[in-house]
Amino acid sequence: MSKERLYLFDTTLRDGAQTQGVQFSADEKRKIAAVLDNLGLDYIEGGWPGANPTDTEFFADAPKTRATMTAFGMTKRLGRSAENDDILAEVINAGTPAVCLVGKSHDFHVTTALGITLEENTENLRASFAYLKTKGREALFDAEHFFDGYKSNPEYALEAIHAAYDAGARWIVLCDTNGGTLPHEVSEIVTAVIASGIPGDHLAIHTHNDTENAVANTLAAVMAGCRQVQGTLNGLGERCGNANLTTLIPTFLLKEPFASKFETGVSLDALKGLRKASRMLDDILNRVPAKQAAYVGASAFAHKSGLHASAIAKDPSTYEHIDPASVGNSRIVPMSNQAGQSNLRARLADAGIDVDLGNPALARIVERIKEKEAQGFSYDTAAASFELLARAELGTLPKFFEVKRYRVTIERRRNKRGKMVSLSEAVVVTKVNGERFLNVSESQGPDGSDQGPVNALSRALSKDLGPYQAYIEDMQLVDFKVRITNGGTEAVTRVIIDSEDGQGRRWSTVGVSANIVDASFDALVDAINWKLIRDGAKG
Amino acid sequence: MSKERLYLFDTTLRDGAQTQGVQFSADEKRKIAAVLDNLGLDYIEGGWPGANPTDTEFFADAPKTRATMTAFGMTKRLGRSAENDDILAEVINAGTPAVCLVGKSHDFHVTTALGITLEENTENLRASFAYLKTKGREALFDAEHFFDGYKSNPEYALEAIHAAYDAGARWIVLCDTNGGTLPHEVSEIVTAVIASGIPGDHLAIHTHNDTENAVANTLAAVMAGCRQVQGTLNGLGERCGNANLTTLIPTFLLKEPFASKFETGVSLDALKGLRKASRMLDDILNRVPAKQAAYVGASAFAHKSGLHASAIAKDPSTYEHIDPASVGNSRIVPMSNQAGQSNLRARLADAGIDVDLGNPALARIVERIKEKEAQGFSYDTAAASFELLARAELGTLPKFFEVKRYRVTIERRRNKRGKMVSLSEAVVVTKVNGERFLNVSESQGPDGSDQGPVNALSRALSKDLGPYQAYIEDMQLVDFKVRITNGGTEAVTRVIIDSEDGQGRRWSTVGVSANIVDASFDALVDAINWKLIRDGAKG
Repeated sequence: MSKERLYLFDTTLRDGAQTQGVQFSADEKRKIAAVLDNLGLDYIEGGWPGANPTDTEFFADAPKTRATMTAFGMTKRLGRSAENDDILAEVINAGTPAVCLVGKSHDFHVTTALGITLEENTENLRASFAYLKTKGREALFDAEHFFDGYKSNPEYALEAIHAAYDAGARWIVLCDTNGGTLPHEVSEIVTAVIASGIPGDHLAIHTHNDTENAVANTLAAVMAGCRQVQGTLNGLGERCGNANLTTLIPTFLLKEPFASKFETGVSLDALKGLRKASRMLDDILNRVPAKQAAYVGASAFAHKSGLHASAIAKDPSTYEHIDPASVGNSRIVPMSNQAGQSNLRARLADAGIDVDLGNPALARIVERIKEKEAQGFSYDTAAASFELLARAELGTLPKFFEVKRYRVTIERRRNKRGKMVSLSEAVVVTKVNGERFLNVSESQGPDGSDQGPVNALSRALSKDLGPYQAYIEDMQLVDFKVRITNGGTEAVTRVIIDSEDGQGRRWSTVGVSANIVDASFDALVDAINWKLIRDGAKG
Repeated sequence: MSKERLYLFDTTLRDGAQTQGVQFSADEKRKIAAVLDNLGLDYIEGGWPGANPTDTEFFADAPKTRATMTAFGMTKRLGRSAENDDILAEVINAGTPAVCLVGKSHDFHVTTALGITLEENTENLRASFAYLKTKGREALFDAEHFFDGYKSNPEYALEAIHAAYDAGARWIVLCDTNGGTLPHEVSEIVTAVIASGIPGDHLAIHTHNDTENAVANTLAAVMAGCRQVQGTLNGLGERCGNANLTTLIPTFLLKEPFASKFETGVSLDALKGLRKASRMLDDILNRVPAKQAAYVGASAFAHKSGLHASAIAKDPSTYEHIDPASVGNSRIVPMSNQAGQSNLRARLADAGIDVDLGNPALARIVERIKEKEAQGFSYDTAAASFELLARAELGTLPKFFEVKRYRVTIERRRNKRGKMVSLSEAVVVTKVNGERFLNVSESQGPDGSDQGPVNALSRALSKDLGPYQAYIEDMQLVDFKVRITNGGTEAVTRVIIDSEDGQGRRWSTVGVSANIVDASFDALVDAINWKLIRDGAKG
C-alpha cells in the first residue's frame, strides 16, 4: 500500500517570532532556516516582508532552501485593488515561491475588528487569491479564527474559505487562532469542511496551545483528513505557543496509525537530529531547554523510580514508548546502576578516552559530575570541560600553568570631552615552570570601543604563557553565553565559552560562580588547557 | 438538568515527586496539600508510606484535609497472604481513608517484569482488594500499563481489572504508564471497558505527557465516560510529567461541553486562585515559572502582534479564549517592533500614563523603542524601563540624581590561609541636588560569601542617595537575567533586573552594553528611578 503524503509547514520564523521575549535577527533566522531545511520540512515561513526591518532584511537575501520558502502577509484591504495594495505588494515583491495571506472567516471579526460587511470581506478574499494566481505563486489562505467562526456562523465560515479556494488558493489553513478549540470540535469541524467540498489534501491545520491541546488538535485534524500541518520548533509562538513540531514529527514517523499511513519529508535518519535541532533553537534564544519536553527533553527518558529502572534493565520497552535514540535522545538511569556507567564510558570514548569497565575512576567521575551539576555546572554542551574533569579523575590531566591572581577594574567616567565612557582593565599573574608572568590588557576592541571585562581578561590571560604561547596564538573566543541558574538573591551564574583555533576546531567550556567575571575566568582557563592537551603540549 | 459529578485526584505528592530533580520534604508536602485542599481537589495522594523516610514522616502526621487523603502502595506479592505482606501492611497502617494500590494488567509485564503467571497475578489482585475491603478503606486499583496491556491482550487486561473491581475496588484507575497512547486509542479503549461492565463512575484516567497528549487523553477518557481524573499541579511527574491539573481544572470549569455537564469540587471562586497555586509550587521547587503554560503562564494572555493588540482594545474576546481573571491571570500587551500606536497607548495606560491619540510624542516613543531594540534592548518584560523611556519623551521624567562615575574592582587571589578567594568592590559617585555622594561597598553576602560585582554595585548605588534614601530603603534586587544578544566577538549583553519593595511591588528594568557590568548598572539606575516615581518623590 502506498503511503499518503503529509506536508509539514514550519512557522517558527513567523508565528514563533511572536513569542513574548523572542526577537530574532535576520542572521538567526537564516541559521534556523538551515536547520529546518536539513530536518526535511516542506515549507518554511520566513516572516512578513515589509512588516518590520528584520523580516525585510531576511527576504532581501533569503536562504536557498530545498523547502518551499513562504512569505506571510494579509489579504488586500477594502477600497483598493489587490494590485494597488502597498502592503500586499511588499509581500509579493519578496519573490518567494509560496505566499500565505491571513484573512477573516469569522463573522464577528469581520464586523468588529475590520468593521466591514461580510460581502466585502468575501470579495477581498476572492480578489487577493485571484491576484496571487496571476503571479504564479503557490497560495495559502490563513483562515484566522476559522474554528470559532464556524461555531458562530458555519455558513459564512465556509463561504469565506470557498471564496479563497475557488479563486485559486492551493491550501486553506484552518486556524484555531485563540487556541480555545478542543480536539472533538476540531474533528467535527474538519469533517464538515471536507464534506462541504474542499478535499483534505488542500487543507492545513494551524493550532495554538492555550488549553495544552495544540498537538492533539493537530492529530485530530489529520485523522479527519487534513494533509498539511503547521507548527513551530519547540512549540514557540504567541501566548502559549503553536503546535510543537518537535513533538508532532516523531509522532507522525513513529506512532500508529500515522507511521504506516503517511510519508513526510523527514526521514528516519534526519529524525535522529531532532534533539539537536531543538537545542540549537534554545541556544540561539539562550533559553534553558525544557527538561520535560516530549521526545527531546533531558528528562523524557529519565527513569527515577527504582522499580522502573530495574524493569528497564530487563527490557527498555517496559517503561519507554519509543527508542530514545530514534530522536537523538538518550536514556537516563540512576547513576548508581550499571547502565549509568556504560553511558559514561560511551561519552568518554567520544572524547577519545578509553576506560575499562571495572575502572574505579568511573564511579568517581560520576560522583564529581553530580557534585558539580548540583553547583550549577552543565556538561551537556561544555564537552571540553567534561573531558578535563574526567582526565583529572583518571590522572591524565597535565598541569601546564598556575594562576596566581587576577584583578579586573571596570570604570565608567566622563572623558576629556565630557562624554561618559567605560573602560575595563585586567591584570593576570600566572606561573609557568616556576617563572612568573604578569600581564595587563584593556577592553578596547580594534575600533576603540569597549568590549567589556571578559574580553580584557581573556586577552591578559592569553598574552604571554611563556613556552605555551605558541600553542594558543591561533585560538580565539568566539561565543559567550551566560545563564543565571538559580533565580533570586542566591543567583549563580553559569558561563559557557566557545573557542576556535586556526585548525577549525571549536570547543566549549563552562565556569560557575556567583561572580560572573570569576565564572568567565574559569571557563577561559579550561579553554586554554583543552587546547594545550589537543595540541600535545607537554605539562 | 442536574450535573454529573467529576472527581479530581491529585498525585503531585506521589507521581509528581518522581520528577527528575524534585525532592519534597515532608513539610513541603504539607504546604502543597493545604493549597490543593483549598483549591477543592477531591483526593490527595500523599505518597507511599514505607517506601522512603519522607513519605513515612508525612503520613505519621498527615494533614487534616477536606479532600480524601490517599496512601499509595502495591498489591500483595506472590507467596504470601495480603495480611502478611509487610510492604502492604505499612500502607494500611498509615490509616488513610483511601488506599491506591498499583498492580499489573499487561500480560508482558506480568511475565517479564514480575516473572509470574497471569493466573497468579489475577489472584494477587483479588486477594489485595478483598483485604482492603475488610479494612473498610476506599480502594483504588492503579492498573499500570492498562492501555498497552489492552492493546497486547484485551481479554487479560479486562480480566485483571474485573478481578479488582469484583473484589471491591471502588475505582479502577486506567493508567497510560509509558505515556505513548494517543487520544483516539484512549477513547476506543475506555468505551470498551465500560461495555465490559465497569461503569464510568468507577473509572479513573491517569495519563502521562510523553507525546504531549496527557491533557487530550484525559479529556478523551472523560468524554468516553470516566468520572475520575488524576493529575498533578503544573504537570509535574516522571519523564515528561503527568496530566496537568492546572490546565484540566479550568478546562472542566470553563469550556464546553464540560462546564455544562459536570460539577467538580472546585468553585469558580477557588479557580481565581489557580495561578497563585501554580506559582506556589514553583516557589517551593525554586523553579522559573513556565511562561507559556496554558491558562496560568505569564505569556498566556500576552498579545505581541500589533494587529491582535488593536483588536483586543476593541473587544478582548477577539484574541482570548477565556477571561484571564477567571484563573487569576492578567493580560499583557507588550511592545515589540510589530507594535502600533494603539498597542503603545494601551501599554502606557497600564502604567497610569494617559496620552491623547494625536500626541506627537507617541511617534517619537515608537521610534525610540525601535532604535533601542535594534541595540539589543527588550521592553517586553522590562515594563519599568519602558515607562521611563516614555516619560523621557513625554517630558514627565524627573531628574532625581546624576551618576558622576563608578568603578568596580574584581580580584581573585590567595588569602592568608593560602586559599583562592574572590572579592569585588564598587565605588559609585552620585550628585543629588548639587551635593556629591561617594559610596563604596563590597561583594560579600551576609554569610561572608562572594556575591559578585553586580551585587557590590547595587549596594554602593543604593547606600546613600541623600534625600531619596528613605524611598529606596525597602527595595531589593530579587532576580537577575543575562542574555548575549549577538553571539561571537560582537557580543552585546542584555541584563534584566527584577526588583521588589516592601509594598509587594515587583518591577523589571533593562540595560544593554558590550560590558556586562555597565549593562547591569544601567538597569539598576532605572530600577531606582522607577521606584522614586512610584513613591511620588519630587525631582
